[in-house]
Amino acid sequence: MTAALLSIGTELTRGELVNTNAAWLSEELTKLGFEVVEHTTIDDDLERIVTVIRRFAETHQVVVVTGGLGPTSDDLTTAAAAKAAELGLFRDESVVEGIRRKFEAFGRVMPESNAKQGDFPEGADVLSNPAGTAPGFAIRLGRSRLFFLPGVPREMQQIFAESIRPAIAGLAERRTHQIHIRTFGMTESGVAQALDGLEEAHPGLTLGYRAHFPEIEVKVHVRSSSAAEAELEAQAIEEKVRVVLGDAVFGGRDDSFPAIVGKVLRDQGRKLAVAESCTGGRVGEMLTREPGSSDYLLFDAVVYSNRAKEVVLGVNPEILRVHGAVSSEAAAAMAEGVLRVASADIAVSITGIAGPGGGTDDKPVGTVWFGLAQRGKPTITRHQKMPWGRDRVQTVSAYVALELVRRAVLAEQDWAR
Amino acid sequence: MTAALLSIGTELTRGELVNTNAAWLSEELTKLGFEVVEHTTIDDDLERIVTVIRRFAETHQVVVVTGGLGPTSDDLTTAAAAKAAELGLFRDESVVEGIRRKFEAFGRVMPESNAKQGDFPEGADVLSNPAGTAPGFAIRLGRSRLFFLPGVPREMQQIFAESIRPAIAGLAERRTHQIHIRTFGMTESGVAQALDGLEEAHPGLTLGYRAHFPEIEVKVHVRSSSAAEAELEAQAIEEKVRVVLGDAVFGGRDDSFPAIVGKVLRDQGRKLAVAESCTGGRVGEMLTREPGSSDYLLFDAVVYSNRAKEVVLGVNPEILRVHGAVSSEAAAAMAEGVLRVASADIAVSITGIAGPGGGTDDKPVGTVWFGLAQRGKPTITRHQKMPWGRDRVQTVSAYVALELVRRAVLAEQDWAR
Repeated sequence: MTAALLSIGTELTRGELVNTNAAWLSEELTKLGFEVVEHTTIDDDLERIVTVIRRFAETHQVVVVTGGLGPTSDDLTTAAAAKAAELGLFRDESVVEGIRRKFEAFGRVMPESNAKQGDFPEGADVLSNPAGTAPGFAIRLGRSRLFFLPGVPREMQQIFAESIRPAIAGLAERRTHQIHIRTFGMTESGVAQALDGLEEAHPGLTLGYRAHFPEIEVKVHVRSSSAAEAELEAQAIEEKVRVVLGDAVFGGRDDSFPAIVGKVLRDQGRKLAVAESCTGGRVGEMLTREPGSSDYLLFDAVVYSNRAKEVVLGVNPEILRVHGAVSSEAAAAMAEGVLRVASADIAVSITGIAGPGGGTDDKPVGTVWFGLAQRGKPTITRHQKMPWGRDRVQTVSAYVALELVRRAVLAEQDWAR
Repeated sequence: MTAALLSIGTELTRGELVNTNAAWLSEELTKLGFEVVEHTTIDDDLERIVTVIRRFAETHQVVVVTGGLGPTSDDLTTAAAAKAAELGLFRDESVVEGIRRKFEAFGRVMPESNAKQGDFPEGADVLSNPAGTAPGFAIRLGRSRLFFLPGVPREMQQIFAESIRPAIAGLAERRTHQIHIRTFGMTESGVAQALDGLEEAHPGLTLGYRAHFPEIEVKVHVRSSSAAEAELEAQAIEEKVRVVLGDAVFGGRDDSFPAIVGKVLRDQGRKLAVAESCTGGRVGEMLTREPGSSDYLLFDAVVYSNRAKEVVLGVNPEILRVHGAVSSEAAAAMAEGVLRVASADIAVSITGIAGPGGGTDDKPVGTVWFGLAQRGKPTITRHQKMPWGRDRVQTVSAYVALELVRRAVLAEQDWAR
């Protein structure tokens, strides 16, 4: 069962918008068992749209078309669908009335141009759009079921979920299952090397790797005689992958790294304080994206100046003078200082040279020191030299700091490796 | 002059990757004066790739193909190009040797599979790839010049800039000019309403709006009798737009909001301190994305707990008890406290309820107080009630705080509006 996607709009062909709809729909159709073999994007040109609709209808079982359902003269999708299928148009007055009421709900009068959003090819099924004004519609042509949706992602996704997925879910036989495993601390080639041989051992398995810097996501994609078989095999392979990759695995598809760190802190009832220099607030920003982070984050001191390190954290000026702000001694003093000021259970510090300026022969750009202080335990420091530019040094440093916290809380034992 | 794009890869047709290459290339080709009328994405299937290449070569003057140049058996683009053009393949040993040396530079041995990245259709021009292993290539077929590039965005962009743009820049006559204007503080419909009538007054003008929440970018696109004419007219219109939108305009296409705020601080020699509660470090994170932010950012206190507000910033516990942490009084005390602790010239504070929990009837989710303290001037506070979810409340709050700083430094006068 093959499927194809058609996106319509000059804003896409001119590159003013990135086409995220195509990726979203492809993933949904793939999950339903369809083989999506083609996406096409066309500008607002009636003849070109008609040509592609006809070609797709001859070739594919399911075709999803997005965009061009708006009220303006550029919006040609409905006319093109009718022309491709050699159908007339009819106006659904109840749809026009619904659009009129949506405008009135916002205290506005519907412009007459919007009435054309109530036009459909004869015989089309109207697909209601709870999130916007223009409904979608469905027609049959050639070998194909064609679905037409607005281009606004939120509206498109809701109509797909409510009206299309149920209508086509039974058409393709799904024989695959996918599991995603998220890791931090290994390179993509390191992960691939560690899993070398796994595909040979499992004929239905395809391993995929997606890098969301600095995370590597491993995708276990299994094809088998049925969806249930594929799921069982994928779970067995997931176990193997988790064993091989060990501590680098932090969660599954929907787990964000800071959320996992927050969960560990909350579960263990530990209160965290942070002292950041070169990361400038990134650790705090990551942690507080999660609701409820006030349960475990007490204080994050972004101590960009030496004076702030001294005054706020009580770092001895002699340490900064003798060893510099980017040193094991400074990292330790910062972590201990913020632990004390915030009365926290655990504290992490970051001080480094994110670049592009500020590097020396001794401490080149990318040199970052980390400190980890815990109540009643010795403070530990470590450092890394990173070969990247400013943004990546900041991102990786924030991850490393959070990873130190996660492993310390999880292990309550020597975390340094 | 029409152009078309072909992207190759099952990772795209399965929706595992969003196709950002198509938007990037479309924008580049549009700027060069081409009318980009079609993007197509195809899975790794030789026959389908050949079919599309032939169809495009009959129709368009310029075709850019990305992806499928890797070393694995899935990478079929070179073979498809040769088949579409009915050409044989030749191996360029100097290219293979170059790839071998790149591997050796990383201390690795080139796998033999990579040798196929030295294969090209007979007569092709090889396009060198300074950023990766696989070179691109160019051939002519039908009415068309076809360019084949790797799918890795960084490599693709560099080859396009170095080898393709110069080769095709003269083919299309460019008669347009675009200017981008970035704003904060108005809604998209507010901006559109303010600019109502401008398109009618300038027949060659198309206004576009792109929302990068919470910014609105206005795009002035002018078509005229020549590129020079279009540029002159676009500049005149830009002036009008800047006057109409006033303070909401903060910069042009390549200006980031925090960079503009940093520039204002640096130009005026002012040192900033920040106290953040509900934004959790986002202000610091935004400011320190810019290199050199240590010139103006002294300290950012992410005071998530009441204790941190008291101990670090010296906020009187009575204020928190009587008025609560989300109050004008707390915002003022936080700003004054961090100004004093950091010995800064100007300080801004944020305290609010980002949600989803923590709201009350009196102070619902989305209530945020801001304080602005300056050495030798009265402290000012303001508040906003925001109708969004956590992430948007945090983002807008960080923007509002930075905007308070920008306007205070720029105006040195009553900034409250």
